[in-house]
Amino acid sequence: MAKTYKIAVIPGDGIGKEVTPWAQQALEKAAQGEAEFTYEHFDLGAERYLRDGAILPEDEEERIKANDAILLGAVGDPRIKAGILERGLLLKLRFDLDQFVNLRPSKLYKGVTSPLSNPGDIDFVVVREGTEGLYCGAGGAVRRDTPNEVATEVSINTAYGVERVVRYAFQLAMKRRKHVTLVHKKNVLVNAGDMWQRLVEKVSAEYPEVTHDYQHIDAATIFLVSDPSRFDVILTDNLFGDILTDEAGAVVGGVGYSASGCINATNEFPSMFEPIHGSAPDIAGQNKANPTAAILSAAMLLRHLGFDEAAAKIDAAVEADIEELGSTQRSTDEVGRDILARIA
Amino acid sequence: MAKTYKIAVIPGDGIGKEVTPWAQQALEKAAQGEAEFTYEHFDLGAERYLRDGAILPEDEEERIKANDAILLGAVGDPRIKAGILERGLLLKLRFDLDQFVNLRPSKLYKGVTSPLSNPGDIDFVVVREGTEGLYCGAGGAVRRDTPNEVATEVSINTAYGVERVVRYAFQLAMKRRKHVTLVHKKNVLVNAGDMWQRLVEKVSAEYPEVTHDYQHIDAATIFLVSDPSRFDVILTDNLFGDILTDEAGAVVGGVGYSASGCINATNEFPSMFEPIHGSAPDIAGQNKANPTAAILSAAMLLRHLGFDEAAAKIDAAVEADIEELGSTQRSTDEVGRDILARIA
Ligand SMILES: CC(C)[C@H](C(=O)O)[C@@H](O)C(=O)O
Ligand SMILES: CC(C)[C@H](C(=O)O)[C@@H](O)C(=O)O
Repeated sequence: MAKTYKIAVIPGDGIGKEVTPWAQQALEKAAQGEAEFTYEHFDLGAERYLRDGAILPEDEEERIKANDAILLGAVGDPRIKAGILERGLLLKLRFDLDQFVNLRPSKLYKGVTSPLSNPGDIDFVVVREGTEGLYCGAGGAVRRDTPNEVATEVSINTAYGVERVVRYAFQLAMKRRKHVTLVHKKNVLVNAGDMWQRLVEKVSAEYPEVTHDYQHIDAATIFLVSDPSRFDVILTDNLFGDILTDEAGAVVGGVGYSASGCINATNEFPSMFEPIHGSAPDIAGQNKANPTAAILSAAMLLRHLGFDEAAAKIDAAVEADIEELGSTQRSTDEVGRDILARIA
Repeated sequence: MAKTYKIAVIPGDGIGKEVTPWAQQALEKAAQGEAEFTYEHFDLGAERYLRDGAILPEDEEERIKANDAILLGAVGDPRIKAGILERGLLLKLRFDLDQFVNLRPSKLYKGVTSPLSNPGDIDFVVVREGTEGLYCGAGGAVRRDTPNEVATEVSINTAYGVERVVRYAFQLAMKRRKHVTLVHKKNVLVNAGDMWQRLVEKVSAEYPEVTHDYQHIDAATIFLVSDPSRFDVILTDNLFGDILTDEAGAVVGGVGYSASGCINATNEFPSMFEPIHGSAPDIAGQNKANPTAAILSAAMLLRHLGFDEAAAKIDAAVEADIEELGSTQRSTDEVGRDILARIA
């Protein structure tokens, strides 16, 4: 009998609401016969906040934690001051649920036009640390709104937190082309950079088949444009990973094709799967958003739960869809239906 | 009678040594009759450090300060641990000489092939803050090399430091297409980001003709690839500026065409001009490096000293050279001679 998994669904804001149902449908169809899903919907995001001031109430967070995995749409709304929802909801979940691996594959699909004239065969994964660095929320301001204001942001990095994500990257590289590129800025951020580099050296000794190199973040942004096919696994911190994955999204023809997993690799808490695009208020509610990234995040969820074959079905359906119809103008629902129809 | 200016020359490492003489020659030729230059050479960089352990001795720094401007080649050598020369020499000069504007134009020259298939008309300037942020060197490590190590990096931002660079950006925009884009990550780095945004609002009131908008750093890396011609003046902090300008360099066909000025806009201390490329140890000593960026940095130096026409002569010579010969394989000396010959 098929096992039942409990999925917390947080559609969030803007196009998040339009793409998430397609992720659920893809999940259902791909895992048919193998797994069943029950869904618990959470009304979190801008509208809830504007209505009653709640961002992530404690009891709802506890209920989210009781699920096996989380599907998230997108968070963010121009009516709300930057940072409130991001830090109070999205980052709070990533941190509280100790989702220390932010896994973000970048692949140039056949049928998608890259903005690069010579993109080559792009297929890499960014392993972004998800619970440390400049995202901790450490820092503050004194004499705010005066000419003497000082504002700080503190990047906190621990050997504990870095070593586990380094190890994840090397393990992942073993299943891929066996190359890890550490990206940091160790010539300026010498404390954190040096620790990252030392831990990469240490862990790499356990994976003699995996080669590794190092690039400064500025150089990495160059190579993403000039030679993106050189990368296999990119390992980096929270902020650099944010930057590189958006640039990578652009290079593979748009963030509409990029999914991500916020993974708690010890399974102490549920992992969370989301498209890397935002809530896109400019096109929200118009049935225009591309649900592909959300559907791909459902595949990542399935893979995380151990359903590799079901995940591969979604990946194959997406690949075939893009190859054949990627260049056509379609609505959210059309793309969703087209991909669904291909899930064997 | 032509006034004489004292220029400190720091060729530095690798290809820095090969390209800097061409910058000097361009300076001389373009300013002929208008200005004369005397040069004081400083033997600073990897070789000096390996020889006698000196990075930037106090008396030499004082002598550098006594000059009217500085020409720098490049700093960095794989034999030396990352950070030592960067922080001890390059960043020390930027900070001690209070070079708070790091000015980095990006232009797609006719004759250069961008890696983008549809680059459009790229012509923007990044105004990068140069004396604050994560580059302060604040931070440290405890329990280094143990499983309990914690490493921090602190970004320090002051209203004093930010407001002056914001004002510089708006003034520059007035001489250009009158648009400023603030790039930050204010949805995560709420303390610093909020201060930057408030100071932009404040200063923008003094420049009603200049429009301004805001992008998160991750979104900006997308637009640099998908629509780089939208930008006029990009205003950002030290780290984001480092990242964006390298990506921009790639987008305009390579950092070999990108110069930069580390500017003390109050002229309390000399400003410093340098190509944005590094020391490129892989091609050093082979007469292969492109001296164009170094030559363009000489034009920036001239403009800074008030010789706009002489600067324009260099810019025009470079533009003509690239348009006609940009796609040919030439040695350092050939490119240098070709450009020199065009300086009217
Ligand atoms: C919305 C924002 C806080 C978030 C981040 O910076 O991590 C987003 O850009 C992402 O990449 O998931
Ligand atoms: C060498 C390094 C310290 C420097 C920087 O990060 O500023 C360089 O990348 C640059 O952009 O000038």
